[in-house]
Amino acid sequence: MNKKVYLTPGPSELYFTVEEHIKQALKDSVGAISHRSKAFEAIYCEAVENVKNLLNIPEDHHIFFTGSATEIWERIIQNLVATESYHLVNGSFSERFHEISFQLGRTAHKLQAEEGTSPDINKILIGENNELIAITQNETSTGAVTTLEDIAVIRNAFPDMLIAVDAVSSLPYINLDYNQIDTAYFSVQKGFGLPAGLGVWILNERCIAKAEELASKNYNIGTYHSIPSLLKSGKKNQTPETPNVLGIYLLAKVAGDMLFKGIDQIRRETEYKAAVLYNAIDNNQHFKPFVQNPVHRSKTVIVAETTKNSKEIISQLAAKGLEIGSGYGPYKENQIRIANFPTHSKEQIEMVADWLAAQ
Amino acid sequence: MNKKVYLTPGPSELYFTVEEHIKQALKDSVGAISHRSKAFEAIYCEAVENVKNLLNIPEDHHIFFTGSATEIWERIIQNLVATESYHLVNGSFSERFHEISFQLGRTAHKLQAEEGTSPDINKILIGENNELIAITQNETSTGAVTTLEDIAVIRNAFPDMLIAVDAVSSLPYINLDYNQIDTAYFSVQKGFGLPAGLGVWILNERCIAKAEELASKNYNIGTYHSIPSLLKSGKKNQTPETPNVLGIYLLAKVAGDMLFKGIDQIRRETEYKAAVLYNAIDNNQHFKPFVQNPVHRSKTVIVAETTKNSKEIISQLAAKGLEIGSGYGPYKENQIRIANFPTHSKEQIEMVADWLAAQ
Repeated sequence: MNKKVYLTPGPSELYFTVEEHIKQALKDSVGAISHRSKAFEAIYCEAVENVKNLLNIPEDHHIFFTGSATEIWERIIQNLVATESYHLVNGSFSERFHEISFQLGRTAHKLQAEEGTSPDINKILIGENNELIAITQNETSTGAVTTLEDIAVIRNAFPDMLIAVDAVSSLPYINLDYNQIDTAYFSVQKGFGLPAGLGVWILNERCIAKAEELASKNYNIGTYHSIPSLLKSGKKNQTPETPNVLGIYLLAKVAGDMLFKGIDQIRRETEYKAAVLYNAIDNNQHFKPFVQNPVHRSKTVIVAETTKNSKEIISQLAAKGLEIGSGYGPYKENQIRIANFPTHSKEQIEMVADWLAAQ
Repeated sequence: MNKKVYLTPGPSELYFTVEEHIKQALKDSVGAISHRSKAFEAIYCEAVENVKNLLNIPEDHHIFFTGSATEIWERIIQNLVATESYHLVNGSFSERFHEISFQLGRTAHKLQAEEGTSPDINKILIGENNELIAITQNETSTGAVTTLEDIAVIRNAFPDMLIAVDAVSSLPYINLDYNQIDTAYFSVQKGFGLPAGLGVWILNERCIAKAEELASKNYNIGTYHSIPSLLKSGKKNQTPETPNVLGIYLLAKVAGDMLFKGIDQIRRETEYKAAVLYNAIDNNQHFKPFVQNPVHRSKTVIVAETTKNSKEIISQLAAKGLEIGSGYGPYKENQIRIANFPTHSKEQIEMVADWLAAQ
């Protein structure tokens, strides 16, 4: 039996080079080295530099590692919000970030958009005491995106507030302008095709200053994973705790592979594969893109409504070795979600698209 | 060139079956499966059951997964301490836990013992408002242990307080009586010989009740990794966030291997190997156990003072393919630390001991 290909929206199929990198890591005892050794510092440095180069992140920005992107939600609120945050909410994950701010005792405002749409930025109404605007660039539960143009408009309208961008399932595809935002984050088991267990947190000097200000005013910004603690260790190419060393190693290697392939090529391929999928969905009576406005349709997480039960579609594709995802939460049974990440080949995507078109 | 053997006190040499388990995991797409799938739930369940069986943890106790043991320090204080904690401090790691309680705004008391010794439990003086007693069963920085007898005495003296036991570098060797304590924790890169990036948190119903009580009184117990959130997901054999799936899989498999070998056998071997090392250290003019009282000498992290510079010893052993650790912090240059974990064979330990004895 051939191995299944996972086109689920995360975790998803491993990047095609991961297996070889893991074998090399075992040969090089990456799992045994001290996280205070020069060998680890070199891995840390390689991961940070490769991610910065791949994503065109300004040199003065920082990259820190956490256990998950979920953890980053908590750390952002603890470190960057004393009292008020504002969330653009259009699905389960943006809602979860909003809820975390509330759970941490902040006044968490939101602009709620219908699921399957993106927030209308003209409706944003933010009080002057608000500190952070949370944008879910790619809402994994619905496949709706907030455009880079909208993010730029928000930046211009609120230059003094911190802007946090959830790019969990759109990086490395999405070409974020890191000068238009203050912090962004992703988890490695989506577009980077790595085993889960690592969150990657990108932030600028304004975030450092804000966390230090909150600390100086005796706000509780957490302990080992506060921004000042991450920064102190990061300056030594280390982490405060013993981290997921193998995960950081694999990120370094896969980001290096993607650099070698070229980010432009990866982006072009992503757009081609997304077009193939949407074309199949658009032209079949049993399927319809959940996101009606083409401008807001995700290129990396393609979500379709279906007249059939999603279980049936998923199991029929699984029988062909193609594992796709169900709808999220309330949409479980009448939607399907298909990941279109860099590791997914044109041929695999075309097989899915051909099957959908033939229904 | 032969591969080096890591006898560093964590991360350390991988358990000898890990490489094969990783290869099987790659074949079975463990890195790609959804953390909401039945396949993941089976892995989660296997990890919990194997750890419970291996360590003889009562069936009604809970096991949760975090990113690191460092994270567990933070979660313990957030979830189990409203105002006051009491820490037995005799080295860098016990001090770090004490500091985390302070950083989170609690009144963090401590009984400070000299490094290289264990706290004299007769000196414990705890106010009645104290909620939790933190014991570092095996202080990785100094190789000093708090005995199981001392833990039992503390339990009897303070039946109403929660007792938290740091067994980061002594499990699975140490035969903790989980009925004498309320919570214990370890990280997988020590005695279990796994790649770092996973903390394992064992706790009883009293901890659940305490966290729920704090939540009901509007204390901030955190968000996705609060005890109630971990419990809610854990009941479904899931985690709140996308976890280190590969790490949980490897824990399940290695705990299973250790069950097959037998915990008694592992414990006997650990004691034999520790005796071999202490014998070499005791009988050589250049070395001396840092912990003077034999009762308080760790069987899993052997720490020796040396008249030579530790760098020299470490590099000479490294030339023989044996990587040991330096002293911790201020002891970096005049101490060595040697891990004696289940993966370290008698032959490897004897090679180290023979070399030390020949100095």
